[in-house]
Amino acid sequence: MAVHIFIILYEGSAWGCAERLYDTYCIRLLLEQKYVFKIFCYIFNCETQKKERKYSMARTKGKLKKLRVIPLGGLGEIGKNLTVLEYSDNILIVDCGLGFPNDDMLGVDLVVNDITYLISNAEKIQGLVLTHGHEDHIGGIPYLLKKMNVPIYGTRLTLGILENKLAEHELGFQPELNCVCAGDTVKLGLFEVEFIHVNHSIADACALAIRTPLGVIVHTGDFKIDTTPVEGEMTDLTRFGQLGKEGVLLLMCESTNAERPGYTPSEHKIAESLVRIFDLYKDKRIVIATFSSNVHRIQHIISNSVKFGRKVAVTGRSMINIVSAAVELGYMNIPEGVLIDVSEIKKYPPEKLTVISTGSQGEPMSALYRMAFNMHDKIELGTDDLVIISASAIPGNEKLVGNIINELYKKGVRVLNDSVAEVHVSGHACQEELKIIHALTKPQYFMPIHGEARHLYHHKELAEYMGMEPNRIFISEVGKILEIGTDGAKFNGTVPSGIVLVDGTGVGDVGNVVLRDRRHLSEDGIIIVVATIDTQASDIVSGPEIVSRGFVYAKESEPLIEQIRMISREALYHCLDKGVRDWAQLKYKMKEDLSKFIYSQTKRKPMILPIIMDI
Amino acid sequence: MAVHIFIILYEGSAWGCAERLYDTYCIRLLLEQKYVFKIFCYIFNCETQKKERKYSMARTKGKLKKLRVIPLGGLGEIGKNLTVLEYSDNILIVDCGLGFPNDDMLGVDLVVNDITYLISNAEKIQGLVLTHGHEDHIGGIPYLLKKMNVPIYGTRLTLGILENKLAEHELGFQPELNCVCAGDTVKLGLFEVEFIHVNHSIADACALAIRTPLGVIVHTGDFKIDTTPVEGEMTDLTRFGQLGKEGVLLLMCESTNAERPGYTPSEHKIAESLVRIFDLYKDKRIVIATFSSNVHRIQHIISNSVKFGRKVAVTGRSMINIVSAAVELGYMNIPEGVLIDVSEIKKYPPEKLTVISTGSQGEPMSALYRMAFNMHDKIELGTDDLVIISASAIPGNEKLVGNIINELYKKGVRVLNDSVAEVHVSGHACQEELKIIHALTKPQYFMPIHGEARHLYHHKELAEYMGMEPNRIFISEVGKILEIGTDGAKFNGTVPSGIVLVDGTGVGDVGNVVLRDRRHLSEDGIIIVVATIDTQASDIVSGPEIVSRGFVYAKESEPLIEQIRMISREALYHCLDKGVRDWAQLKYKMKEDLSKFIYSQTKRKPMILPIIMDI
Repeated sequence: MAVHIFIILYEGSAWGCAERLYDTYCIRLLLEQKYVFKIFCYIFNCETQKKERKYSMARTKGKLKKLRVIPLGGLGEIGKNLTVLEYSDNILIVDCGLGFPNDDMLGVDLVVNDITYLISNAEKIQGLVLTHGHEDHIGGIPYLLKKMNVPIYGTRLTLGILENKLAEHELGFQPELNCVCAGDTVKLGLFEVEFIHVNHSIADACALAIRTPLGVIVHTGDFKIDTTPVEGEMTDLTRFGQLGKEGVLLLMCESTNAERPGYTPSEHKIAESLVRIFDLYKDKRIVIATFSSNVHRIQHIISNSVKFGRKVAVTGRSMINIVSAAVELGYMNIPEGVLIDVSEIKKYPPEKLTVISTGSQGEPMSALYRMAFNMHDKIELGTDDLVIISASAIPGNEKLVGNIINELYKKGVRVLNDSVAEVHVSGHACQEELKIIHALTKPQYFMPIHGEARHLYHHKELAEYMGMEPNRIFISEVGKILEIGTDGAKFNGTVPSGIVLVDGTGVGDVGNVVLRDRRHLSEDGIIIVVATIDTQASDIVSGPEIVSRGFVYAKESEPLIEQIRMISREALYHCLDKGVRDWAQLKYKMKEDLSKFIYSQTKRKPMILPIIMDI
Repeated sequence: MAVHIFIILYEGSAWGCAERLYDTYCIRLLLEQKYVFKIFCYIFNCETQKKERKYSMARTKGKLKKLRVIPLGGLGEIGKNLTVLEYSDNILIVDCGLGFPNDDMLGVDLVVNDITYLISNAEKIQGLVLTHGHEDHIGGIPYLLKKMNVPIYGTRLTLGILENKLAEHELGFQPELNCVCAGDTVKLGLFEVEFIHVNHSIADACALAIRTPLGVIVHTGDFKIDTTPVEGEMTDLTRFGQLGKEGVLLLMCESTNAERPGYTPSEHKIAESLVRIFDLYKDKRIVIATFSSNVHRIQHIISNSVKFGRKVAVTGRSMINIVSAAVELGYMNIPEGVLIDVSEIKKYPPEKLTVISTGSQGEPMSALYRMAFNMHDKIELGTDDLVIISASAIPGNEKLVGNIINELYKKGVRVLNDSVAEVHVSGHACQEELKIIHALTKPQYFMPIHGEARHLYHHKELAEYMGMEPNRIFISEVGKILEIGTDGAKFNGTVPSGIVLVDGTGVGDVGNVVLRDRRHLSEDGIIIVVATIDTQASDIVSGPEIVSRGFVYAKESEPLIEQIRMISREALYHCLDKGVRDWAQLKYKMKEDLSKFIYSQTKRKPMILPIIMDI
């Protein structure tokens, strides 16, 4: 099959345009890779409204393959972002995040993506490129690196945070971390990845322009358009626009706020608001909990404190880690003598202190949690304190955050959070910002990413509203393959995908059976019936003993436990007398009799576990 | 001690004022009850700026006692509302609600208030008055009635819903339900309770004016001020104002929305919005999930359906119950032939159908949940459907609701919820409405009720902002006694209070020990080690056998389980060889050895349960 490229120039256009087009990466690559293609060039005469054929050119050198776009995480969910791009024998990975367990994943610490597909195609992987340093974009890397060594590319802060994280895992080798800056381009096999500056709630965030033999993919990472960021420049809209003019094959754009109309306010709003709050609460100690990765906001809090003559103490492990990493890497500028150790705070009057803390999501045992529940060994809160929760609760954390706020109020602490004051803005683009990216990039195809189903569908609607045909929009799923060829794009098959649960050091050893048992245990507890049987004599030599946990308060339920013992004994003798020697049958009988009895007495269904010992 | 009443009249005031004052309920009661008191009456001369003594009067007939206000629920929490008012040997109960378990109350179905105080003072109780028929105001009544028979007073719909609920419990006697209307006054011992019409998200809601020997208590129940309700009148502000002019001793005002500035929009807004939506989605089947108790909204949905030529089917047990109760009691008006059974819906084209459903909070196994997850036996949803979730997620339910929305989008169902459309308004007063009640009632004392600590403190702030002195505002707690006398008000002691967990038919048999075990079991599961020992021979005759549940997937972890068996055996022999016969010591040793080993291997802490059997 021949690939045809038509170049149409309007009269008056510099001829060099066409030459530059020839020189673009795609065409160079097609020549290098020896594909079949033809180039036609026309000049459009506005007066005659006709196209004049200028020249055409045909080469027959090879065949273009399909580009495959496979999300392994981050679609149909918030978190665990991981996208795989595949062309020929080349795989490029974008981000590798982690997720947090749902309420029904009892006892699970973390959730990572199933990377079976990457493991079985490890030799094809050219590299892993990172958009920014949030957990949901880099948190899965240690688990990936435990399976394979992949060169990693990211900006300085992103790699700085990643290094901290990797230090907590024993990899046994030194991973290859390649530092890039916004504006840089790296060649990874047949892919060429350009990093584009964007605004987000973490410094040094990037979108990606990924050149492939079939065209450019724009992957936005997470972003917002902040016209007045507290540090650095606005999202590089110019570059998005240039890419749009050059032609974008596929836009992969984040969808977190796709349901929200309007614009996300600027970080500057929060900066202004904090100045007002510092001014209003001059007589109070100010404790601010925020996301440790929001380096710019933390810098602003520190600068503000300096301005108001306050010392700054930092509490919470991740906050201490990130602040020191950011200072080291030059992302923060703290004047000498401002930062004090949290153990020194008693030396200063409340109004001369700012405390920056973790716990803005209400996380149990975080620094703010410990302060609220009188468990912090250095800081006691009271009526002299103002606590600012500079964050919004991530869905599912509302109650945790609410509990902390209530505890603080009970102590007489003044609390400002995002429901009563301007102390937080989102890091994600709302609908009007998303529209700007769509309008600038004018993609041929569009795949909404980074969002639950509801967000992806709203983002699709937005694209349709802007005039995109529905058949060029692809709502994908984790593991689903989008194949893009010169003849169009379509879903074609799936790869193994899903989630892997991390519990303690175990990765993947907690599955559905274990979770089902944990849920059962959590609801009504367990009743264990143990009996030792002499098979020869067909008699019980010890027990049945009844042990329960999580069922009823045993000390106050002795009659009930005694009845359970009686029923177990009867069931046992019933079977033994009938000559039953099959343990399974015996256990089944006991379970059935006990379940019925217990449910009739309590309307509960504890796990019933008969254990028969034989001597 | 003498009680003095000073009446000051401005010159020109009608003399009748003083006479009417004499005739007020308080003073009549004081006379009846034979308390000591004196009445002084002055006329204030504006010109001379002097008071002229008109007459004074003294009686010595008795002594005024303290009025005690004791919340047993609903303060420092959302739900479980229950207030106790006590004067002399008279107790009046206001509302008796239930609450839902927190995430850490594993397996618990419901939470009710500890009513020990009421049980031990049962003979003093004059009655239970109900403000409205929501679960958090009436749901605890079956559990109260199981302990004592108390006459109950409420409006028609409130009692209708209560009767439905009581039918599910076996009380063994017919409770005394007394039906009242807004405007009615009932005398209960020394208390006189007047029911005042208010707007709320359920019909027939009332505030209460409770006359006591010491003065009038205004208890708002839950309310909003809806100037354009879809049915009936605006909250009876006139009556609040008259009470204010008469003099209010204590205002107990709900605080749910005390953090929210402005006004809560009218129910009319939703009605208008629903008309627009019905008009816009003429070609779709409309499924609406809302609170079953919001009778007015459901009526509006039905009327709308009639207007648009749709039949209406109702699904979900509580929705069916309440709709039939409301129709029976005349609170709903459904034209003949409109309501169809859910099994008949296949007979009608989608655009001719409205389905009203439960599940607006994402409750697992509710009708909407079953529809979303393909588990509803009568209704299948798809691209022909519009689902409206006419509710906002109660804190803690956000994820449940979100899961349903995502499932619906995946099916191609269009979803409208409160984050993207005007489909719900709160039933609770925002700050400006609260201010109106404060301004009208001008209470001597104020206790914010119905809210978490954060809401109560914001409500206090609001009262202070309106000029009330902080020492007249009492933020109370569950079980705390506020004592009001002629000499002022102060906190004075506590009564037994707290929560009682309901699990199945068990009320109170699940406590901290059981919950702690359930939590432990839910996190890392359980490992049971059973061994039968011959004490005489100092030998193990059977086992140790290892059984685990919820720990690891045992089939894939045989080496680990085998190691656990070995360590258990070693620990056993170690003790037996040393001559240890104390089971507790033996178990302790096994637990310790196993915990260490398991944590080192897995970083998990399962419950370890050694069971030693003796023959």
